Amino acid sequence: MNPTSEPEFVQIFTTGGTIDKIYYDAKDDYTVGDPQISKLLEEARVNFPYAIEALFKKDSLEMTEADRARIREAVAASPARRVLITHGTDTMVETARALAGVPGKTVVLVGAMQPARFLGSDAEFNIGYAVAAVQLLPAGVYIAMNGEVFTPDRVRKNRERLRFERTEP
Amino acid sequence: MNPTSEPEFVQIFTTGGTIDKIYYDAKDDYTVGDPQISKLLEEARVNFPYAIEALFKKDSLEMTEADRARIREAVAASPARRVLITHGTDTMVETARALAGVPGKTVVLVGAMQPARFLGSDAEFNIGYAVAAVQLLPAGVYIAMNGEVFTPDRVRKNRERLRFERTEP
Amino acid sequence: MNPTSEPEFVQIFTTGGTIDKIYYDAKDDYTVGDPQISKLLEEARVNFPYAIEALFKKDSLEMTEADRARIREAVAASPARRVLITHGTDTMVETARALAGVPGKTVVLVGAMQPARFLGSDAEFNIGYAVAAVQLLPAGVYIAMNGEVFTPDRVRKNRERLRFERTEP
Amino acid sequence: MNPTSEPEFVQIFTTGGTIDKIYYDAKDDYTVGDPQISKLLEEARVNFPYAIEALFKKDSLEMTEADRARIREAVAASPARRVLITHGTDTMVETARALAGVPGKTVVLVGAMQPARFLGSDAEFNIGYAVAAVQLLPAGVYIAMNGEVFTPDRVRKNRERLRFERTEP
Repeated sequence: MNPTSEPEFVQIFTTGGTIDKIYYDAKDDYTVGDPQISKLLEEARVNFPYAIEALFKKDSLEMTEADRARIREAVAASPARRVLITHGTDTMVETARALAGVPGKTVVLVGAMQPARFLGSDAEFNIGYAVAAVQLLPAGVYIAMNGEVFTPDRVRKNRERLRFERTEP
Repeated sequence: MNPTSEPEFVQIFTTGGTIDKIYYDAKDDYTVGDPQISKLLEEARVNFPYAIEALFKKDSLEMTEADRARIREAVAASPARRVLITHGTDTMVETARALAGVPGKTVVLVGAMQPARFLGSDAEFNIGYAVAAVQLLPAGVYIAMNGEVFTPDRVRKNRERLRFERTEP
Repeated sequence: MNPTSEPEFVQIFTTGGTIDKIYYDAKDDYTVGDPQISKLLEEARVNFPYAIEALFKKDSLEMTEADRARIREAVAASPARRVLITHGTDTMVETARALAGVPGKTVVLVGAMQPARFLGSDAEFNIGYAVAAVQLLPAGVYIAMNGEVFTPDRVRKNRERLRFERTEP
Repeated sequence: MNPTSEPEFVQIFTTGGTIDKIYYDAKDDYTVGDPQISKLLEEARVNFPYAIEALFKKDSLEMTEADRARIREAVAASPARRVLITHGTDTMVETARALAGVPGKTVVLVGAMQPARFLGSDAEFNIGYAVAAVQLLPAGVYIAMNGEVFTPDRVRKNRERLRFERTEP
């Protein structure tokens, strides 16, 4: 992005994950609800052009190779050069790797460790961070979590520390 | 930032503004309280190295040229190459212009239209966005608001629309 | 209220005050917005019958004797035996005293020290408390604040401690 | 309670339930955390005397008859005449029935359909309502939910409507 020119269009795909989890008392359980990113972008009164398309409402542990192929097709088919994907954190790295090699696009995956509807959630910070990342990074596939940008081959989710970490090459 | 290397240190200066406003019933008024960015970064469990220094707790309408000189000195004196400044939105553009020409640093100013302690505030999104911007942009002074990066000479706050807008050159 | 019978109808009058304050960046100031009690009762999924009527949207320091006369008329004219009034805390005691002697009704005044839209506000607790108070107390005029019921002749707002306190007779 | 006299001491027992649920990303699940009522009472700046004792941190579906006997013992052994119990909603009615006949005390059970840490939760309203109910009701065992007081023999949780309802005698 050139800061003196108008911002580019961003295509946003949502796939579910913790960020969109709501609590259904009727099941004494959480469920993946509607994409929260829509509300978060409205609250932030963002001005750049974007569109949101919900591909799935899944916990990322339930995501299959067929689902990943569908995400890849959606990214490749989009006319947008900048693509943001909200995704569960557990298999975000696998999906990022499955997207490797999509040519000519900046693709950023982002999620949250706490549902967006929770007080003190990391969702709003993470979405803000990922929006800047998808606007500013060169073509490639990236994970934006915990205030850092990672490449898919050099990252893992540390489930004990609840953080994404850089791995050795 | 090179996404395959460790993230750089970010120096954060806080100056007050709406983002830090709290409500004091005893005065029937809002007052600038402690910097909220500290809590927001903890909630986001960020992993990059940073330090926070509070320069002022001011409404930005009360900021003087002497205050701006002090901000400029603090930025110049910091060993950090990446500097984030939280600031009231009303005179953010003036402060950004006063920082022009500080050499060799990426400086990003950010604020909020709603106090961080308000439900539905833009503060968390904006801080997330600004953190990515300060990590990823080349040397220069920028304003990060409403999901966009602006240069100080090409931006104004539209008070009617409650948005920062790009201006003609 | 007899806990084995159906709950009675509650008439709710709103008059403004801190509980309904919102933040308008355009003015760098707070303003009394729409009544928050409507949203709070929906979130609590209450089941008892009620109606909400907005009488004013005022800071209670601006409330006049004519305003208090209008509140008294509205209470007297309502067919409801149970009346809840949301009110700014600064002159809540004066309004409660002005309502003394309305016959045959249980009238409860309630407000908040922090706007309902603030994280950590006392508004939701206070509204819940006041709803139970208006359902359970005998005829009379009461203030429900800080987890206590007060009679208008034995209460004051302690502005230093930000609390309603019982006074000596 | 006599509104002109000092408020009585309230003993609060917590047992877990949805009201105290937090989200642990490491388990992709909700877990019962620390009692939220403590924080809620502080935010409301309540002035009446109380003590909080955590008996369990359980989902109420896991509560056994032995657990209910322990709650009954704790209530009976407390010197307090007014006892508030936070409890999961699924078996709140069973626990209320198990407490029937504890002499000389006002006992109120309360919970929430949404975790207290969720935006838009009913927890704060419900706790406020229950505090007034335990202060104002005569001796007996009650459930305070959805802005109503129920007796244990005339109530059920309607899981489809997510509401407590009065049943026919």
